[in-house]
Amino acid sequence: MEHVKQYIDQHHDRFLQELFGLIRIPSISSVAGYKDDMIRAAEYWRKSLREAGCDKSELFQTDGNPIVYGEKIIDLSLPTVLVYGHYDVMPVDPVELWESQPFKPEVRKGRIYARGADDDKGQSFMHAKAFELMVRTNTLPCNVKFMIEGEEEVGSMNIGPFCRKYKDLLKSDIILVSDTSMIALNTPSITVGLRGLAYMQVELTGPNIDLHSGIFGGAVANPINALAKMIASLTDDNGSITIPGFYDDVIEISREERDEMAKAPFNEASYMKNIEVDELFGEAGYSTKERTGIRPSLDVNGIWGGYTSEGSKTVLPSKAFAKISMRLVPNQDYRKIDELFEKYLMAIAPKTMKVKVTLLHGGQAYVSPIDTIAYQAASKAVEATLGKKPIPVRSGGSIPIIPDFEEVLGVKTILMGFGLESDACHSPNENYPLDNFFKGIETIPYFYQYFTEMYLKK
Amino acid sequence: MEHVKQYIDQHHDRFLQELFGLIRIPSISSVAGYKDDMIRAAEYWRKSLREAGCDKSELFQTDGNPIVYGEKIIDLSLPTVLVYGHYDVMPVDPVELWESQPFKPEVRKGRIYARGADDDKGQSFMHAKAFELMVRTNTLPCNVKFMIEGEEEVGSMNIGPFCRKYKDLLKSDIILVSDTSMIALNTPSITVGLRGLAYMQVELTGPNIDLHSGIFGGAVANPINALAKMIASLTDDNGSITIPGFYDDVIEISREERDEMAKAPFNEASYMKNIEVDELFGEAGYSTKERTGIRPSLDVNGIWGGYTSEGSKTVLPSKAFAKISMRLVPNQDYRKIDELFEKYLMAIAPKTMKVKVTLLHGGQAYVSPIDTIAYQAASKAVEATLGKKPIPVRSGGSIPIIPDFEEVLGVKTILMGFGLESDACHSPNENYPLDNFFKGIETIPYFYQYFTEMYLKK
Repeated sequence: MEHVKQYIDQHHDRFLQELFGLIRIPSISSVAGYKDDMIRAAEYWRKSLREAGCDKSELFQTDGNPIVYGEKIIDLSLPTVLVYGHYDVMPVDPVELWESQPFKPEVRKGRIYARGADDDKGQSFMHAKAFELMVRTNTLPCNVKFMIEGEEEVGSMNIGPFCRKYKDLLKSDIILVSDTSMIALNTPSITVGLRGLAYMQVELTGPNIDLHSGIFGGAVANPINALAKMIASLTDDNGSITIPGFYDDVIEISREERDEMAKAPFNEASYMKNIEVDELFGEAGYSTKERTGIRPSLDVNGIWGGYTSEGSKTVLPSKAFAKISMRLVPNQDYRKIDELFEKYLMAIAPKTMKVKVTLLHGGQAYVSPIDTIAYQAASKAVEATLGKKPIPVRSGGSIPIIPDFEEVLGVKTILMGFGLESDACHSPNENYPLDNFFKGIETIPYFYQYFTEMYLKK
Repeated sequence: MEHVKQYIDQHHDRFLQELFGLIRIPSISSVAGYKDDMIRAAEYWRKSLREAGCDKSELFQTDGNPIVYGEKIIDLSLPTVLVYGHYDVMPVDPVELWESQPFKPEVRKGRIYARGADDDKGQSFMHAKAFELMVRTNTLPCNVKFMIEGEEEVGSMNIGPFCRKYKDLLKSDIILVSDTSMIALNTPSITVGLRGLAYMQVELTGPNIDLHSGIFGGAVANPINALAKMIASLTDDNGSITIPGFYDDVIEISREERDEMAKAPFNEASYMKNIEVDELFGEAGYSTKERTGIRPSLDVNGIWGGYTSEGSKTVLPSKAFAKISMRLVPNQDYRKIDELFEKYLMAIAPKTMKVKVTLLHGGQAYVSPIDTIAYQAASKAVEATLGKKPIPVRSGGSIPIIPDFEEVLGVKTILMGFGLESDACHSPNENYPLDNFFKGIETIPYFYQYFTEMYLKK
């Protein structure tokens, strides 16, 4: 496969420039007002797929942002790889913490800095370029389909209906996704588990208007004080979640499996140093990697209420808000968690408050078996380009649509991600190492090759 | 005193237009960027005092916003009234809840709607117009001084030093202030007590940057979750404040005095209906009026952290903030409360967090005796124009500078306020009834008359 490295070397700068063109479009899906940019980003993908060699490449309208579909069918007797990715990105605030502008990609010390540099523009675009490479060098061994959506960061509301409607069009043998991290290029890993997600918004209303805290303070219940008490009641001092029934469906992982997982290299000291904390905290009885890999968690993602600007304002506010999300593990259903959460909040809310709880988005957890030919092909591909057999790991993140794919399309997904934990996905100064971008492009053709070989031998 | 009503009738519209001119200047002291407007508002006052009849009227520069000083000395053997007020106002957010623009005064159903309509532009400007009335009708019975500051809403940092420096210039026999409320025009009251204030800002820092709540959630302590638990620990389920030592200096009011206070009319049903709450909440063992009048309180005035915009962002934030203020009662020292608060917060903060506590502003509580000639003069004046003897009441609000005046200038203050609790001071749609504005102008000359008579008889 010498042609792979050669082609990448020859087109190195153009690949990067094309990625930058995609990154420059501020396709933030969670904020209204970027609608035109969502369409521009989708159109950029459509054009890229066509130019890379797709025979068909088009936008499918949905109730939200369009889905980009592309395909190249070379022989119906060969297997088909369905590539999934997303062109939407997270918001950029707090924008003042960025060292360069989020939508002006900049390369510093071997890393591309920009919103979407990794998640998921950088990672998904590797597939467009690897595909181009195989087409141009006449080495594409199987059929390919692309499905790139624009609502992954807001719950993928429309791709489920899309999959159901176009089930035949999307027929494939494996779904291939690069939207996860590996431990390091010299310690490669493949994600075999994802947590589920139940993301809630809570709104508390006390008095009908903001009151003067001098005149009313002490006599009228304050929604922020009340919200703080309610949030405090969601977890205990051992880091466990106290919502009744929350752990009912959690499957305990065996001591053996936990011992096996513990063998993956993990340096707690450098983990802490990277994020500058003196102490870690999580559920008692579990290690740091277990706390994010096999155990559920609860985080307040945002909170606001009252006067939040400079200086002091003596207000007893009318309202207080929080965004609270729970990461779930296999066998927990986000719909049940949504119900338990709302029921508990209603039960602990003081009578002085009106409470509104909304599910902003939800998704199930996912586990990928490692005894499939698809996993074996991915493992061999990574070993071929990075020189080491990758470790199968469970990630703490969620891609809610992955379990849905299996349910709707009946196909497993391989999460062959090339990100790193240091890429600051969803944070200021998101970045993606150039090495990872180009190693990803190099690895993908190996996957296609091995997967097709094993598929035909089967 | 028939001339009083006559003069007000003749100049009714002009009085209002002049007040509106002052209100139109957005003199928000707590937000940087309004510096020019602070100076414009001070200059407006200076000019108004000169035109109303002051022989001297000038701006005194301070380290912050200028202080307006004006005087008319008619006879050094007569008493001197020192009028205090403030030209700065509170911020206007949430601005979307205003029914008209905060700095475009509008009269609807007999009320002036605008930021500062009551607090304190409307109330302080009554003194300028009452003074003009007495000068123009040759009925000014004593000497007058004005001291109008521009930092009352942010802690009056510079008026203390100003008073110390110009103690001789400010020599007076009584300080007269209209910056408080009465029960109603047909149930007049005079404020004889004010609560003190300790207004704190708390900043919690966990990880050095915002993290992905999927990747890190469960293993790294979340500053918002931690802040919620800390806030929850500040009060108990009986509405008491749990900071050790907080109540040590609170003087228990006798049963007799509490019974006396309970005679002031108060309709709990309409109080609740006005603010649309189904239930009140406060310190166990005290009535609603006691909870705001004679007991301290603790309110979170603002809270923020993480993602607070539309939609969902799965962030584990680096920081969380809260503005927390405590109203204090006589004998509690805000400097001691500041220390107790900070000490307690440091003690309950988890080791995973860095904590920063800042005193944003503080002031002592105040009690005014009712057996002074100044109080008697105010009581008679209110009775003369409103037809009923006013009830002495303790207000829940704070004017931190009032106790300082007594300490520095050695003079008591009369809080002859004409606001109503329904004026929405500090809130959206602040307003001030026209009747209260004009009744205030009518009452003030009576106070001057009675006070001078009693003073000379003494």
